[in-house]
Amino acid sequence: MKAVGIVVEYNPFHNGHLYHLESAKEITGADIAIAAMSGSFLQRGEPALVSKWARTKMALLNGVDIVFELPYKFSTQKAELFARGAVSILDAAGCSHLCFGSESGEAGAFEKTAAFIDANRPAYDGLIKKYSKTGVSYPRAASLAFADLNPPPDTIPLSQPNNILGYHYVKSISSLNSRMKPMTVRRKNANYHDEDFSSATIASATSLRKALFAGDSGLEGIGRYIPGQTRKILLEYMGEFGGFHNWESYWPFLKYRLLQSSPEDLGTIYEAEEGLENRLVEAARRSANFQEFMEFAKTKRYTWTRIQRLCTHVLVNAKKEEMAADSTGASYLRLLGMTEKGRSYLNMHKGTLGLPLVSKLSSFPGTEINLDIRASAVYSLGIPGTPGQNLLEMEYSQPPVLIEKG
Amino acid sequence: MKAVGIVVEYNPFHNGHLYHLESAKEITGADIAIAAMSGSFLQRGEPALVSKWARTKMALLNGVDIVFELPYKFSTQKAELFARGAVSILDAAGCSHLCFGSESGEAGAFEKTAAFIDANRPAYDGLIKKYSKTGVSYPRAASLAFADLNPPPDTIPLSQPNNILGYHYVKSISSLNSRMKPMTVRRKNANYHDEDFSSATIASATSLRKALFAGDSGLEGIGRYIPGQTRKILLEYMGEFGGFHNWESYWPFLKYRLLQSSPEDLGTIYEAEEGLENRLVEAARRSANFQEFMEFAKTKRYTWTRIQRLCTHVLVNAKKEEMAADSTGASYLRLLGMTEKGRSYLNMHKGTLGLPLVSKLSSFPGTEINLDIRASAVYSLGIPGTPGQNLLEMEYSQPPVLIEKG
Repeated sequence: MKAVGIVVEYNPFHNGHLYHLESAKEITGADIAIAAMSGSFLQRGEPALVSKWARTKMALLNGVDIVFELPYKFSTQKAELFARGAVSILDAAGCSHLCFGSESGEAGAFEKTAAFIDANRPAYDGLIKKYSKTGVSYPRAASLAFADLNPPPDTIPLSQPNNILGYHYVKSISSLNSRMKPMTVRRKNANYHDEDFSSATIASATSLRKALFAGDSGLEGIGRYIPGQTRKILLEYMGEFGGFHNWESYWPFLKYRLLQSSPEDLGTIYEAEEGLENRLVEAARRSANFQEFMEFAKTKRYTWTRIQRLCTHVLVNAKKEEMAADSTGASYLRLLGMTEKGRSYLNMHKGTLGLPLVSKLSSFPGTEINLDIRASAVYSLGIPGTPGQNLLEMEYSQPPVLIEKG
Repeated sequence: MKAVGIVVEYNPFHNGHLYHLESAKEITGADIAIAAMSGSFLQRGEPALVSKWARTKMALLNGVDIVFELPYKFSTQKAELFARGAVSILDAAGCSHLCFGSESGEAGAFEKTAAFIDANRPAYDGLIKKYSKTGVSYPRAASLAFADLNPPPDTIPLSQPNNILGYHYVKSISSLNSRMKPMTVRRKNANYHDEDFSSATIASATSLRKALFAGDSGLEGIGRYIPGQTRKILLEYMGEFGGFHNWESYWPFLKYRLLQSSPEDLGTIYEAEEGLENRLVEAARRSANFQEFMEFAKTKRYTWTRIQRLCTHVLVNAKKEEMAADSTGASYLRLLGMTEKGRSYLNMHKGTLGLPLVSKLSSFPGTEINLDIRASAVYSLGIPGTPGQNLLEMEYSQPPVLIEKG
């Protein structure tokens, strides 16, 4: 069986994801699709809309065959480390291809871009440093630096988030010596961060979440942009847990954590650098909600995403020494769910997986996975009372989701 | 002007407190009464029902003339340190007497008890150690040890909480070389921990809080046991902040803190000893509310109060090194409020106060008071949204309460 690997958040799974998934299987001729999916907290430093279990169901019911958790250590990182974690998992799972969505270009253009940057590394790094000193954010500095190098026309601009991710997938495949072949599917319509609906059936996850929380029409309003299975699972989630997760549900805990900590304590948190943590404490003291807090905290230099990521690490108490990702990527494959076809694949490849397979927490003692367990525990507190307690218990008692089809 | 010192929590101020306050002034012939009052968290390891500002108003409107905050470092401690902090404050404020309520005996009996224990110190300590080994709580072991020594009849039994406190007031007066003369008022009716109403007009604060949270008749049900001013202030508080504070409001934060911390981190918390902190983590993982949690956590050896105090320290993040109380007691007098008469007293004694007077936070830089500020910040999070934010701001902006009378 041939497997194509994809890197996803599915927050929530929508028609654009379905298009990407189907195209990935088609252009690679794969029999199954394997996803490395962020767990409780996502790359932009946000809690996932619904639990990893619910998002795993969405994936499996829409055509993914195996879902592995992208550990917290990678899921909440800038593109380079996020990509490295995901690529290491898909490679260890035996995928022959990695297929990502991008705003532009063929996979070859990403490889040329990586080669071009490698050839101009000292100049590129120097320019990034120069631009960073002017007070702009890192992504902006990198984009300006790239343009300054006069790249040839068959490279791709690194100013779009999915292009940046694609570039790092390609780089990670090379640096991890993976045999995976990179492929790309051009994204249809919606841009990554679009907040409004711009197409008849495809909208960005950002706009879908915005519509869900605006609450006027709720799930009805987004029905045309998501598969029926996603809608059903969101409805069930709402019924079981009383709502979806967003930063406002975690705001009291973040505020508490910031006001209760000593500066030294906060200084041990990953990404607490340059005194940014003190800025957060001051903002927390003055703010009654997360939106207000972010308005206080953000600057030209520190992007919304950069601050949100630090807030996530403060919330989860992720320390510098825990997060220091080693160069070899993930150290386990945590199985969140599979179809029958996915199960056959895993049975066939049992002996050749590149990392230990974790399907029950109790069977895998280790310190690295503790960060994921802790992140899930904190995540569950976004739902008050007994439903939240039930969500917490799932971390320990939920077996991998099994979908009897495919 | 002659001042009598009293040590109070006023949680809330009730008719028994009024009786004690009036008796204290009467038997000592004092012109004014000065209270050392617990701030946000109390001796039994609980959040105060209403803020220190509201409780200060209750005190001033019912006959107290000056209220100083008993710092967190002392207010959340076992009797010995609680008493030492309070005595050091009242002594520094120039009180000529300290007047406490007790279940039995004259002040002389407390002094005899202290002398008797001092004379039998090695035997007493040995017996406490012996009983502690059988797995009983410290207070129980101390009480059994005392009985074993065959104390003379003019000593007092140390099994009642107010007798224990009284004993430590007397001991602290002596160890701090204070010139204050101890006096005691016998408590009328209600026992310290009584949960039911047992008298026509006097009930324990415990029973009053229980009735308030039972919620059937609410404030109406306790009207006969509290002065009109207390009732008015409780009503105002309810209107302004939407409710009263109890452990259940802080439970999500405690659970969060316990689930998000590493064992090493929890080990730095004051009173985290003998692995009790790990027991709390396990209990937190299994519990959906504070009551459930406490039922899981408590044992024969660890009393409810002992566990609640540790939980308070976990909540406030009070570290061992911050709490290590030195032998000389408090290091500042934080003025929470005064009557006109109290203000005159302070003006007269400005030059002879034994500790620096703090009436504005900004005027008193220092690390010790940070613990009080942090405790207030955490306390304010028990009220959600903007009212809680307003309560937080009061810590910085509220000047001492001034009552224009007396």
